[in-house]
Amino acid sequence: MRTQVAIVGGGPAGLLLSHLLHLQGVDSVVLERRSRDYVEQRVRAGVLEQGTVDLLRDCGLGERMQREGEVHEGVFVQFDQERVHIPFAELTGRSITVYGQKQVVRDLNERRSADGGQVLFEVDDVAVHDITTDRPSVTFTHEGRARTLEADFVAGCDGFHGVCRDAIPAEVRRVYERVYPFGWLGILAEVAPSTDELIYANNSRGFALHSMRSSTISRFYLQCAPDEPIENWPDRRIWDELATRLGTPGWELREGPIFDKSVTPMRSFVAEPLRHGRLFLAGDSAHIVPPTGAKGLNLAVADVDRLAEAITDHYRTGSETGLDEYSAACLRRVWRVQHFSWWMTSLTHRFEGPDQEFDRRLQQSQFDYLRSSQAAATTLAENYVGLPLR
Amino acid sequence: MRTQVAIVGGGPAGLLLSHLLHLQGVDSVVLERRSRDYVEQRVRAGVLEQGTVDLLRDCGLGERMQREGEVHEGVFVQFDQERVHIPFAELTGRSITVYGQKQVVRDLNERRSADGGQVLFEVDDVAVHDITTDRPSVTFTHEGRARTLEADFVAGCDGFHGVCRDAIPAEVRRVYERVYPFGWLGILAEVAPSTDELIYANNSRGFALHSMRSSTISRFYLQCAPDEPIENWPDRRIWDELATRLGTPGWELREGPIFDKSVTPMRSFVAEPLRHGRLFLAGDSAHIVPPTGAKGLNLAVADVDRLAEAITDHYRTGSETGLDEYSAACLRRVWRVQHFSWWMTSLTHRFEGPDQEFDRRLQQSQFDYLRSSQAAATTLAENYVGLPLR
Repeated sequence: MRTQVAIVGGGPAGLLLSHLLHLQGVDSVVLERRSRDYVEQRVRAGVLEQGTVDLLRDCGLGERMQREGEVHEGVFVQFDQERVHIPFAELTGRSITVYGQKQVVRDLNERRSADGGQVLFEVDDVAVHDITTDRPSVTFTHEGRARTLEADFVAGCDGFHGVCRDAIPAEVRRVYERVYPFGWLGILAEVAPSTDELIYANNSRGFALHSMRSSTISRFYLQCAPDEPIENWPDRRIWDELATRLGTPGWELREGPIFDKSVTPMRSFVAEPLRHGRLFLAGDSAHIVPPTGAKGLNLAVADVDRLAEAITDHYRTGSETGLDEYSAACLRRVWRVQHFSWWMTSLTHRFEGPDQEFDRRLQQSQFDYLRSSQAAATTLAENYVGLPLR
Repeated sequence: MRTQVAIVGGGPAGLLLSHLLHLQGVDSVVLERRSRDYVEQRVRAGVLEQGTVDLLRDCGLGERMQREGEVHEGVFVQFDQERVHIPFAELTGRSITVYGQKQVVRDLNERRSADGGQVLFEVDDVAVHDITTDRPSVTFTHEGRARTLEADFVAGCDGFHGVCRDAIPAEVRRVYERVYPFGWLGILAEVAPSTDELIYANNSRGFALHSMRSSTISRFYLQCAPDEPIENWPDRRIWDELATRLGTPGWELREGPIFDKSVTPMRSFVAEPLRHGRLFLAGDSAHIVPPTGAKGLNLAVADVDRLAEAITDHYRTGSETGLDEYSAACLRRVWRVQHFSWWMTSLTHRFEGPDQEFDRRLQQSQFDYLRSSQAAATTLAENYVGLPLR
């Protein structure tokens, strides 16, 4: 098999890259380890930055998103029982859209199918070769057969546990990492959200987040131990803890059947550079952010947007400029988003240790500052809605 | 002896309180452990917030400050060799004034003398008594005689090592503290500053600050070990290290005779509450900030401004409101300033530990963000020039 761009990974990064390249007449093949059902059903993030929404709309993927997505013009930040509204639209002229990642993936898969895109699911034994030559290739097994995909470029969109990152030799790669001493217990419940915008709450018992998927599905998170056994959290305990951590005078939390529970550890991770020879990393394969800032999917979209343009430009003009600048340009945004995600995490979570009382007072003073300073509120707002993609 | 307000400590907080009370017709006596010469000569901070300048001017202490102080409309922040200007005046309409604390103390002492204020120097064995009654008192030794000063109120302006804070019983007192794993080597040199505004530099070798006292005296700081022996720092090493840490292409550091060297450990400290019965703490006796934000003196002035008003109001109307609100009102500012001082320290210093590479990238992204976002630059500017005193 031969194509122009071999894309390893059929999550949102890989599928969007394939679609954007197709729109510019560049051919690609996507190799995905899981089944299409699995990829479309796995529970992931649900907040799209303004720039992500604009890009999806401009490349013809906006129809269902604009119909079903919910535009939020702000967010709530809460410290103990005091809740403050951060008005994104007023402070930045931009907003966010609540639309699940699995919907984005479904929209992409449908569109790639309709356009005749080649997406191979349930491939195995993926390995990349010759990435420092002009003829890189990817070998894999599909439907019981060993295959080789030759290409001009390889895009590593295969996530944190993928194989592409390790194809960059250790001597040129640098890894930055922080593991947080807590995780998130996430649940989905069949109940109308008890708020019209997200609530990020710092309670003395720990962090809680009230998010949502639709007018009938609520999404909640509770700070817990990183290795917390789910059995520790029967439904009753979850609702009680959410009511305590999210509670404010006069506000009520609606309860409903919980149909999904999971525990996610929290990590910040960056591997540099994002390019080696003809291999380009995009999305979670190169960087992980804690979910507090709702940035993972948005950052992948920003990478892919830049990569599609660089590759297209190369085919059109022969220029290497976009390819050469890809890694450094992406990393500027990656580190901005790493900083914001770390900051949102630091502001809203309970930390234990010798300085914890001092730290909690600093959190409180930062919360008070967000409430009293337009500049401070704007720094939260402009990062949350997302800085411009370019 | 009897007075209305017994003021323990004759640094800027105690002297200013005495002066402000005098202007409102309230009598006080200031007790200072050191000699007047010592207090007027000790090397301290040199940056006054806009609100501090306004207050000193409005209470008749502005003459020399306005003649000799230098108004700065911004500050430089530097990461490795990149230097960025934060334009205070443009972002906030306010500015800072460089005028040494020892000048402020001299102005205050001269004015208190001229007004017949009672300031006793070189007092010893100070102890406060009966602070939960209406007749508190302070005992001390002066010129070899044991004395008792009876008063309506006692103001504890006696600094971090003073006795007043410990007069608040341990069971009602709460202490918050963080000790930083580094100190500042501070030097004074007879040489014109090599910059017209302060430079805060984060270099991979550690923090450096270029400040100044006048057009002929420069002030510098270098991050060092908290227990660094001064013998490790001969003049040549200091100048070389300053040139490296503060260096940018095309910029030159002027050298001159160094006439003062000292090492200061870095600490954040708050003791709550600031009031117990008739005892009121103000300034360093209740809180210490790392010097990075140049806030110590300014915070003391904010406390004293509020305390003078509360006491005056009590004598005039019998109201307890200002006295009752004193602690909580001061603490809101104290924690804002603690947060800002911690943030400036975190942004500009070298931290060692398992996450140090990750942390340094976060520092760099925050520096880049200060450069690119008006909101981010404004948060630095509005905190540095100082939030309104009330």
